[in-house]
Amino acid sequence: MSGRLFVVNPNSSRTVTAAIDAGISRLRRPDGPEIICRTLAEGPPGIESQLQADRVIEPLLRHCLALEPEASGFVIACFGDPGLHALRDATAKPVLGIAECAVLTAMSLGQRFGVISILPPSVPRHIRYFGAMGVLDRLAGDLPLGLGVAELADADRTLGRMIETGRRLRDAHLADVLIMGCAGMAAYRDRLEQETSLPVVEPTQAAVAMALGQIALGWRRRPRVEGERE
Amino acid sequence: MSGRLFVVNPNSSRTVTAAIDAGISRLRRPDGPEIICRTLAEGPPGIESQLQADRVIEPLLRHCLALEPEASGFVIACFGDPGLHALRDATAKPVLGIAECAVLTAMSLGQRFGVISILPPSVPRHIRYFGAMGVLDRLAGDLPLGLGVAELADADRTLGRMIETGRRLRDAHLADVLIMGCAGMAAYRDRLEQETSLPVVEPTQAAVAMALGQIALGWRRRPRVEGERE
Amino acid sequence: MSGRLFVVNPNSSRTVTAAIDAGISRLRRPDGPEIICRTLAEGPPGIESQLQADRVIEPLLRHCLALEPEASGFVIACFGDPGLHALRDATAKPVLGIAECAVLTAMSLGQRFGVISILPPSVPRHIRYFGAMGVLDRLAGDLPLGLGVAELADADRTLGRMIETGRRLRDAHLADVLIMGCAGMAAYRDRLEQETSLPVVEPTQAAVAMALGQIALGWRRRPRVEGERE
Amino acid sequence: MSGRLFVVNPNSSRTVTAAIDAGISRLRRPDGPEIICRTLAEGPPGIESQLQADRVIEPLLRHCLALEPEASGFVIACFGDPGLHALRDATAKPVLGIAECAVLTAMSLGQRFGVISILPPSVPRHIRYFGAMGVLDRLAGDLPLGLGVAELADADRTLGRMIETGRRLRDAHLADVLIMGCAGMAAYRDRLEQETSLPVVEPTQAAVAMALGQIALGWRRRPRVEGERE
Amino acid sequence: MSGRLFVVNPNSSRTVTAAIDAGISRLRRPDGPEIICRTLAEGPPGIESQLQADRVIEPLLRHCLALEPEASGFVIACFGDPGLHALRDATAKPVLGIAECAVLTAMSLGQRFGVISILPPSVPRHIRYFGAMGVLDRLAGDLPLGLGVAELADADRTLGRMIETGRRLRDAHLADVLIMGCAGMAAYRDRLEQETSLPVVEPTQAAVAMALGQIALGWRRRPRVEGERE
Amino acid sequence: MSGRLFVVNPNSSRTVTAAIDAGISRLRRPDGPEIICRTLAEGPPGIESQLQADRVIEPLLRHCLALEPEASGFVIACFGDPGLHALRDATAKPVLGIAECAVLTAMSLGQRFGVISILPPSVPRHIRYFGAMGVLDRLAGDLPLGLGVAELADADRTLGRMIETGRRLRDAHLADVLIMGCAGMAAYRDRLEQETSLPVVEPTQAAVAMALGQIALGWRRRPRVEGERE
Repeated sequence: MSGRLFVVNPNSSRTVTAAIDAGISRLRRPDGPEIICRTLAEGPPGIESQLQADRVIEPLLRHCLALEPEASGFVIACFGDPGLHALRDATAKPVLGIAECAVLTAMSLGQRFGVISILPPSVPRHIRYFGAMGVLDRLAGDLPLGLGVAELADADRTLGRMIETGRRLRDAHLADVLIMGCAGMAAYRDRLEQETSLPVVEPTQAAVAMALGQIALGWRRRPRVEGERE
Repeated sequence: MSGRLFVVNPNSSRTVTAAIDAGISRLRRPDGPEIICRTLAEGPPGIESQLQADRVIEPLLRHCLALEPEASGFVIACFGDPGLHALRDATAKPVLGIAECAVLTAMSLGQRFGVISILPPSVPRHIRYFGAMGVLDRLAGDLPLGLGVAELADADRTLGRMIETGRRLRDAHLADVLIMGCAGMAAYRDRLEQETSLPVVEPTQAAVAMALGQIALGWRRRPRVEGERE
Repeated sequence: MSGRLFVVNPNSSRTVTAAIDAGISRLRRPDGPEIICRTLAEGPPGIESQLQADRVIEPLLRHCLALEPEASGFVIACFGDPGLHALRDATAKPVLGIAECAVLTAMSLGQRFGVISILPPSVPRHIRYFGAMGVLDRLAGDLPLGLGVAELADADRTLGRMIETGRRLRDAHLADVLIMGCAGMAAYRDRLEQETSLPVVEPTQAAVAMALGQIALGWRRRPRVEGERE
Repeated sequence: MSGRLFVVNPNSSRTVTAAIDAGISRLRRPDGPEIICRTLAEGPPGIESQLQADRVIEPLLRHCLALEPEASGFVIACFGDPGLHALRDATAKPVLGIAECAVLTAMSLGQRFGVISILPPSVPRHIRYFGAMGVLDRLAGDLPLGLGVAELADADRTLGRMIETGRRLRDAHLADVLIMGCAGMAAYRDRLEQETSLPVVEPTQAAVAMALGQIALGWRRRPRVEGERE
Repeated sequence: MSGRLFVVNPNSSRTVTAAIDAGISRLRRPDGPEIICRTLAEGPPGIESQLQADRVIEPLLRHCLALEPEASGFVIACFGDPGLHALRDATAKPVLGIAECAVLTAMSLGQRFGVISILPPSVPRHIRYFGAMGVLDRLAGDLPLGLGVAELADADRTLGRMIETGRRLRDAHLADVLIMGCAGMAAYRDRLEQETSLPVVEPTQAAVAMALGQIALGWRRRPRVEGERE
Repeated sequence: MSGRLFVVNPNSSRTVTAAIDAGISRLRRPDGPEIICRTLAEGPPGIESQLQADRVIEPLLRHCLALEPEASGFVIACFGDPGLHALRDATAKPVLGIAECAVLTAMSLGQRFGVISILPPSVPRHIRYFGAMGVLDRLAGDLPLGLGVAELADADRTLGRMIETGRRLRDAHLADVLIMGCAGMAAYRDRLEQETSLPVVEPTQAAVAMALGQIALGWRRRPRVEGERE
């Protein structure tokens, strides 16, 4: 199994990309597809609104389509999965979103997942997305930290709030598995698991694992070329 | 009540815009907001995939934001509502999508709505969207005509298939209200109602009516400026 | 567009009718249908139980059917929509309920609506109704004020509790739009919006706006005459 | 266990009441509550619309409240359960509706229930009700016979259509239990079971059985007196 | 109506069986089926995990199948209903589970049921089960006491926590009916009803009442013999 | 990454185990965990009822617990996932079920999954399970082949019926991804994909892929020891 799996961070923060890259290192194998993490230079420093999420779709699609001939698959590494279904329309190769895969993975680790989000407006965006996925019955709660993407780099404050929020999801909302609702939280998984005694899904890890499986197993959706009769 | 309500057709077909304009004429009033239908020159001739829908968001947002200072509100006239929540993030003024409003209106006209779509790939897109809206329990069925946007201009073939599909939704799926799942079907509402004996929701009409109500009643969502802490 | 839209308050409180009348004044237009608010003399002073709601149906239907020949449409102005589907069976003209329309309108203003109810037994009634509408996935919460319809006239106490309840729905239940769950709260919308920074749906406003749209657009459900084969 | 359980047929057809009475005879016991079937003289010959259902509520409530002092409980024997929650507001004694109990009973006999209705407009009424009950995920389908209440007395035609409809629910909709969606079908249960090899829930039987259980076990809801602070 | 209804407690605690036996005594009738409560000697002292629940299935099935020739029906008296559908596959006679019947009964006593569970891991088990039943929209909340089955015998502590938990379900979760989520709580129903003013469903009572109804009414599911083509 | 992943076929058919083993060969890697497929000698030749599924739990648990010290994880290779949550209670290591993983994987490959089952009684079992998973909104349909496990070995007949059933799920139920609802169908994936032009999820492949990801990423649920306070 060779080829290249591209993990594209649609914000322009190299710090976030580096944390993602470290997080998925456990999934790299000598004989597996090369896993390449990329930063979308045209993206904003962090994606905190639907407006920002929607505006990265065009450069993100261009970025990915340029890589398509050499790609075995793609992971879109922004919780919210901007452009996921558009890219699936443009290529038959595996395309996974980190929000989708985090939820699907959490559904095999517990009955009710709790989501730790960055800011209050993230919550309705997530709820819409979980509704589109048809999984709202599995949601225990979605609570914001009150921290933007850039602020997640302040490790002490971030970790403290994540632990507090994770415990609230566990104790008051009866979550039995947690999802970190932003690609920029990858560095905190281990500590959060220790402090909450719950499995914690880091979404890019979840998506890369599922992408590797789909590449190995050869699933293809039918590609749909623009303009072609579908 | 003055001001301007912009109804933006994100495909580049002036034929579709003209049909929309005729469809909403019943809602124009001497003392009401001016209702201005616009064609997005940068759009494709028809939007038939998620890829096309996502790719119009950027030019559509630019188009609308340029109009924002003189606008009382916006209607996004593509069934699928591309950029709806992004534009809502960028302005506190009413922003309505025709898919959303068609469904909400149909929910007051019948218990189970049937959707007449253009092509088979429209169906999973719609199902995702109705799931995000949390209204799947009201869906009787969503059946494609097998005709693309451009082909809708062939009135005889289109009307024939719409009637056949509408009756199938009524008789086999027990729909008691129909939704035309594309802005380009506006010319066919009256005939379809006569032939199916069901109320038929033309989605741009539904959205303009709701937009006029919201403009009159002064609802404002909190605008969220990019980069601002939300 | 001429004709008369009848807004019928099924309780006998003229104070409530007057507040409704003031609330919908923004929707009156020189060239639009006349909007006439009426008080059901046979109704109780306030409707606070299913028993009271069901018992007004018979006089409410008689009242409306007597007006039917001169009506362009009807709004039933009690949150709970007593007799809504019965009146729809008796006339093909638009018939809207304020609970139904408040929910449908809120669904275009936010992702999760919070309802401010009068008394604890209102809550299971509302939940049944939202379930019948198939919209429970959009409900953030429904919290009672602990005040009956007559007590709503005590402006200071009512407003104080409404603000407190609205903030609780926003902060603890993550509602991003509020619905006032009683026709008798119409006077408080503006203050509640200011104090919660959320859009607040006054249900009779929502229903009158939708009724005007439906009258203009000419939707007709098939009337079903009693005794006729349906 | 003594006392009287009143089973009230809200239509005025004595034929229907007699069939109900025969159907529940297996539940009469020497030491149990007396089970008394009554016909509502003020009702229409059959209830086939929401309009008819809503209009029987007032005389039905008066009828039941006059019996309340000597009653151990009530069964409302019209599929649609008119006035059910209103009567529950007026008495703490068990009040059961035949539609509710038929569904709850079917949920212990199979995974997906199919409903045999009388006429097409019954279907959206039932869907609203099953939605209010929160049980739509258990519904396999709801298909009308195309026969009104009075026509059910034509045994040959009715039975033929019931068998055909039951088999369609079993084979095309994968129902594994059937519900007869009208009190007037009580005479046909045995034949329908034989011809479909599925358990068939006759709704009045289901409701009387549940009422006897609730009377024996002494459950009381809190009664709510009109005008009283709830 | 003769025959024997077997109520099998799959844990080995005779104390629990005795409490169950006392609880269902109100349902015994001179002319009814004999109701025989049995203790599964092979079961653990209490069932507190899915592991324990699954491991009793084999001895429970053997126990019940040995009784089948003389049985009129069965009640499986462990909240969680281990082996329910397996036993239904093995006999056409009525087989009821106490969790299923508690929920179905509660759905006729209130709109939103609250469940009082023993330990935190009970909650995800219950949520899975309510999801399989399709009734999650009716669930107000499920809160653990933090007491194991054996500890329930400490009446003072148990009752105190049950009252506190029941009130929390009523006041914070807006439950209007309570379910005792363990067969071992049967002795506390009356006190819990008094202290919460809500109807309280003791699950074995609910199941025995429904079983008696089904035995009297003669419903039969099609038995499926192992190895036979189904 | 070393260790052993045990894939346990709970039926006693070595033919099925061999087909599973061939199906997952694409996932074997020199540096990965050894993947060992095992046949449960105590199982029946095929699992076609809840009765058979429940009865394999005890020997299946014993089989797995004996392997636990040397295991990195487990896959339960029967569509229906007998004993899944019980085994999860007994070990903190990854335990995946093939039905659960097939559904979760299909949810990233299409919007509505269609299931090809063996026999009619499989359908209600599956529906219960999808309900417990909270994913019924994603189900397009579940159709039985009318063939038992042993009959699946007749390749021509089986493949013919699978293609016909897959096309029906695609065309009449609008499924855009298919799931093979039995471990014994593994040999037919490629042909079914070619003939339906849809991605086809072979459930054991899906589960092994997810298990490998979870082993690599080190998720641990909290183990719960029997008798221990949970």
